[in-house]
Amino acid sequence: MNTFGALFRLTTFGESHGPAMGAVIDGCPAGVALTREDVQRALDRRRPGQSELTTSRNEADQVELLSGLYEGKTLGTPIAAIVRNTDARSQDYQQLAKVDRPGHADAVWRERFKHRDPRGGGRTSGRETLSRVIGGAVADALLARELPSLSIVAHVSRVGPLSAQPPSPLTRQLVDAHPTRCADPSVAPKIAEAISDAKASGDSLGGMITVAISGAPVGLGEPVFGKLKARLADAFAGVGAVTGVLWGPPELASRLELRGSAFHALSDDGLPSEVYGGIQGGLTNGAPVIAHVLFKPPATLAEHAKAGRHDPCILPRAVPVIEAMASLVFADLWLSFLARPHR
Amino acid sequence: MNTFGALFRLTTFGESHGPAMGAVIDGCPAGVALTREDVQRALDRRRPGQSELTTSRNEADQVELLSGLYEGKTLGTPIAAIVRNTDARSQDYQQLAKVDRPGHADAVWRERFKHRDPRGGGRTSGRETLSRVIGGAVADALLARELPSLSIVAHVSRVGPLSAQPPSPLTRQLVDAHPTRCADPSVAPKIAEAISDAKASGDSLGGMITVAISGAPVGLGEPVFGKLKARLADAFAGVGAVTGVLWGPPELASRLELRGSAFHALSDDGLPSEVYGGIQGGLTNGAPVIAHVLFKPPATLAEHAKAGRHDPCILPRAVPVIEAMASLVFADLWLSFLARPHR
Amino acid sequence: MNTFGALFRLTTFGESHGPAMGAVIDGCPAGVALTREDVQRALDRRRPGQSELTTSRNEADQVELLSGLYEGKTLGTPIAAIVRNTDARSQDYQQLAKVDRPGHADAVWRERFKHRDPRGGGRTSGRETLSRVIGGAVADALLARELPSLSIVAHVSRVGPLSAQPPSPLTRQLVDAHPTRCADPSVAPKIAEAISDAKASGDSLGGMITVAISGAPVGLGEPVFGKLKARLADAFAGVGAVTGVLWGPPELASRLELRGSAFHALSDDGLPSEVYGGIQGGLTNGAPVIAHVLFKPPATLAEHAKAGRHDPCILPRAVPVIEAMASLVFADLWLSFLARPHR
Amino acid sequence: MNTFGALFRLTTFGESHGPAMGAVIDGCPAGVALTREDVQRALDRRRPGQSELTTSRNEADQVELLSGLYEGKTLGTPIAAIVRNTDARSQDYQQLAKVDRPGHADAVWRERFKHRDPRGGGRTSGRETLSRVIGGAVADALLARELPSLSIVAHVSRVGPLSAQPPSPLTRQLVDAHPTRCADPSVAPKIAEAISDAKASGDSLGGMITVAISGAPVGLGEPVFGKLKARLADAFAGVGAVTGVLWGPPELASRLELRGSAFHALSDDGLPSEVYGGIQGGLTNGAPVIAHVLFKPPATLAEHAKAGRHDPCILPRAVPVIEAMASLVFADLWLSFLARPHR
Repeated sequence: MNTFGALFRLTTFGESHGPAMGAVIDGCPAGVALTREDVQRALDRRRPGQSELTTSRNEADQVELLSGLYEGKTLGTPIAAIVRNTDARSQDYQQLAKVDRPGHADAVWRERFKHRDPRGGGRTSGRETLSRVIGGAVADALLARELPSLSIVAHVSRVGPLSAQPPSPLTRQLVDAHPTRCADPSVAPKIAEAISDAKASGDSLGGMITVAISGAPVGLGEPVFGKLKARLADAFAGVGAVTGVLWGPPELASRLELRGSAFHALSDDGLPSEVYGGIQGGLTNGAPVIAHVLFKPPATLAEHAKAGRHDPCILPRAVPVIEAMASLVFADLWLSFLARPHR
Repeated sequence: MNTFGALFRLTTFGESHGPAMGAVIDGCPAGVALTREDVQRALDRRRPGQSELTTSRNEADQVELLSGLYEGKTLGTPIAAIVRNTDARSQDYQQLAKVDRPGHADAVWRERFKHRDPRGGGRTSGRETLSRVIGGAVADALLARELPSLSIVAHVSRVGPLSAQPPSPLTRQLVDAHPTRCADPSVAPKIAEAISDAKASGDSLGGMITVAISGAPVGLGEPVFGKLKARLADAFAGVGAVTGVLWGPPELASRLELRGSAFHALSDDGLPSEVYGGIQGGLTNGAPVIAHVLFKPPATLAEHAKAGRHDPCILPRAVPVIEAMASLVFADLWLSFLARPHR
Repeated sequence: MNTFGALFRLTTFGESHGPAMGAVIDGCPAGVALTREDVQRALDRRRPGQSELTTSRNEADQVELLSGLYEGKTLGTPIAAIVRNTDARSQDYQQLAKVDRPGHADAVWRERFKHRDPRGGGRTSGRETLSRVIGGAVADALLARELPSLSIVAHVSRVGPLSAQPPSPLTRQLVDAHPTRCADPSVAPKIAEAISDAKASGDSLGGMITVAISGAPVGLGEPVFGKLKARLADAFAGVGAVTGVLWGPPELASRLELRGSAFHALSDDGLPSEVYGGIQGGLTNGAPVIAHVLFKPPATLAEHAKAGRHDPCILPRAVPVIEAMASLVFADLWLSFLARPHR
Repeated sequence: MNTFGALFRLTTFGESHGPAMGAVIDGCPAGVALTREDVQRALDRRRPGQSELTTSRNEADQVELLSGLYEGKTLGTPIAAIVRNTDARSQDYQQLAKVDRPGHADAVWRERFKHRDPRGGGRTSGRETLSRVIGGAVADALLARELPSLSIVAHVSRVGPLSAQPPSPLTRQLVDAHPTRCADPSVAPKIAEAISDAKASGDSLGGMITVAISGAPVGLGEPVFGKLKARLADAFAGVGAVTGVLWGPPELASRLELRGSAFHALSDDGLPSEVYGGIQGGLTNGAPVIAHVLFKPPATLAEHAKAGRHDPCILPRAVPVIEAMASLVFADLWLSFLARPHR
């Protein structure tokens, strides 16, 4: 299954060292302002080689739009986009072709598919998220027209033992201002240093990305299956190294320890409260939707990975991917919302 | 959307105080041994009124099978089952009909649907999980034939501040032996006492359910969208009070603090390791799949709820629901697996 | 697959001689006026035993609504309905249990499913269309609110060699006025006689039902896959004895013989023309959508069927089934239309 | 909706005069032998400019495969393919940009989508079928491995008033031997002449394509929704100029006139008979599946079309498209079959 969404559908394709990565977005209405530059700008945010903190694999990742656009607006037909794999160096991986890399899914994939592309992980490469970012850019264009007050912003809220408290409200610009995509000015430099240290010692780091979605209309989501929290859990847990998804206040421990009286007192002002993570009964309740996405440290350590090129900490580059997944979910939910005229 | 699954599909219906709750399971192959008693036994495990720790609403919850069975085996046609709502007392809720209950989704639902059933939450009631348990029972029957070594067992691993360490291997019988469905004999009585205390003081408690799935073949799941962890996250986060889903070792903090070298060293014996929660590249890797599901304390406190009847801690009764969701996911994944003959 | 539709979804279940037939309609918005009587009235139109022209199996077919309604309006939740199989006489069929009936799918079903219900065809019985009529009644209720000018009327336009030319405009009342559901007063009595003759001689008759859908907004359908004609073809060809679906003018032969100049000249008044059957580019074009559905004569002849009870000509009773399928398609297309705000 | 199929899924994209047409095939298992040449060969069969009977638009239609293949075998990942639109001459169409072409869907499309690509029909162009042929080529590769005895062959059985009776058994090679794709040597030259005449006089011709599918295992299809005849009706009616789909013996009139006794006597030898068109109860019955697809004459007459370039009779080029649709349906049905292990 390489399609995500029911009404606003992203289909992705591409192996890391094949001819191209790509995306087809089906279900986007006609008349939405969208240019190649909009998509390119989104890709530039996840591109490798943006700072010393990320992989040295440096691809221009230039997108080409093949369909669905005419005179700067969507046609209501499928929007196809591809990015050529120009900096492949697949010879780097040939030595790995016969060896299952520890911590990778190589052995599992081989057992499942019998026939696999050994070059750089093939379809299991993190490069696959590029297609998601393309989809997210189209979703953002639709949401900008349909729900102009909607804001989806993710940031690195933890790396290893370092936790951050960003200012509020956050914008993508504020988050992008630091190469770590940590928006807490007192913590970001420490995170940068920790990542550099890990890189120097051939090690890696995990952490947490927090995403806040505000300005959504009340009632997005579905009451039973397809609850908003289930949709987001599916979206985020489907990203490579994610090992957990949580909603609401970030203090995990205290959440579990609180009795109901204390927990719900947090919302006793009668307003739709953030204590529910912006979701009640599976639907948006008007408060910001807050989710926390946990990442394990990347599997590829330096000793195994010197031939390949990898990130010591993927969180900074995962921020636009998490945002893209949230945008895809909200574009889909919005179309579902329109399809159900409750009166 | 009231359908769950792609090939093994559960469709649910029913309002808490309407005529009946029900389920239709479509996609189950023919020839699977299944009786009404199998389904009833599963429902009995989630039934209210099993001990003093749960709601006093005491419905017999007798299931009737309407289709899809003949001479003790499935026909390959849809299996429909209903449970009448016999103990409705909807007059208890009439006073609440005009009032949005704090902590409930009433206001959100009203804004979304314009027209709602105010009696006991209607479709948002936890009673809806009854339909999931019916679906899980059919999934279990299929899995028993197709994957006899598969085991899906959930248990209460934490309530409020109390954490449990159950023995290994666990069985459903061991878990059911204590009314708390905590399988750690040193902690279970404390949890029972904490729930009784919360009930006495009109309060409520949240916690964590851990589910272990062992004996699955390698390679179940999908590599990009539809990763096993995404499927399970969707399944578990779609249950009422769930506020988080985590994979792998339960020590959340240490997971975030560990560097990659330490994290992956946990698996240096070369065997498929539990450190990945049994999932690599989105697919089962042969190790047990371990997931942790966090629950917030129920919203209904005694002062608001004296007319309705509610659980001070839903975790004991949520155990069979979490197992049912896991069974539904694995039944669906197994059929998907068969549909892709990789050679 | 027992679900029909993408956004307005009908799931059906039930074996002919099992406990009940049923339907679950998911995706119907909240606030639609709908009562049990609306559904019952639709069922009464397909009920056997309405005249001497149909099977003598005479079931009351009383529907019970189990969910999704409150105070005479839909809740936006799944609407479940069942009809008990009261007049089953399955002993009539026990003699057939071991014998594959000629012209029936018994042998094919046995090879496919290994385990089958031999009583009266089980799931392959025409009684299954009862569930479709329930779905059509809910679709009609939605369409009456959303598209009040939409009209869907089918009639028997041919039986054996007898062709009818009904008056225009037609209504369901006009069609129902004659037990043959042929609306041409000069032909209907002849059709009734032909059916009686066939019945008397243990024979059966096929024919054609024509359905006209007028008052639809322009642009319903999809341009590539999911063209309106494809959706209707799927809907109609999915009914038991259907052997063909045609669009536009009924003169099949002349259609094939016409050159394009003559064919398209039929529409040279510049108005959206019926020559295209009301469909262009896969979308409604504003003219009535006209489709013709061909039925083969029923398989069960008297010599084999004396134990069971069957219709010598199913067309009169198939009229509400064809209408129901069209209503389901249009309800679904309308929700899809709303989900795509082209601007 | 630009995706066809449930388990073997084809997603198509592209406007006639945009950068490229394309297809993504998802769900094809790994290890299937497939090369770029296999796909190119399929495209060459539908390519314009093959004879004087077709449009003079002469594009090389060279396919590029972007993903899903490695060392001559499928990877089990999505297979993406594109064909650049090299011979676009969109200036030919600029004069048409503001004028809705008679008989085309231009006006309908404009009302539905508000914003449309006027160049050569954009997405509504018959060039879109190129993507279907790509999908069909992949389906054929899968079917060749899984069901080597399956044969899907279509031929032109009628053009205008000229009906053909081809020899049996037919092969694609025999059909391709004549530029009309009529396999009846006594009729093919007359059809060629009729098409030439129509072209000379700026006129156009419709007709009928008959497709025979033999060698399928018994039991493919679904009993209620998703009957094989419904799947094929959807597949064929979704092709541009199709105005009807019929099953079984080609004599439409006699079919309608036959009483059941005569109709079913055709199969009284006790073998699974062609009288049912190879389908019973929605499933393959072991006999060849025979379907007839009716086409109206193309809308574009010479007076309107001199700027664009069009076929006076699309049937010869539609033959591989109909075959592709059948292959897509059978590939999907086969995977569904595997997903339901009835025992």
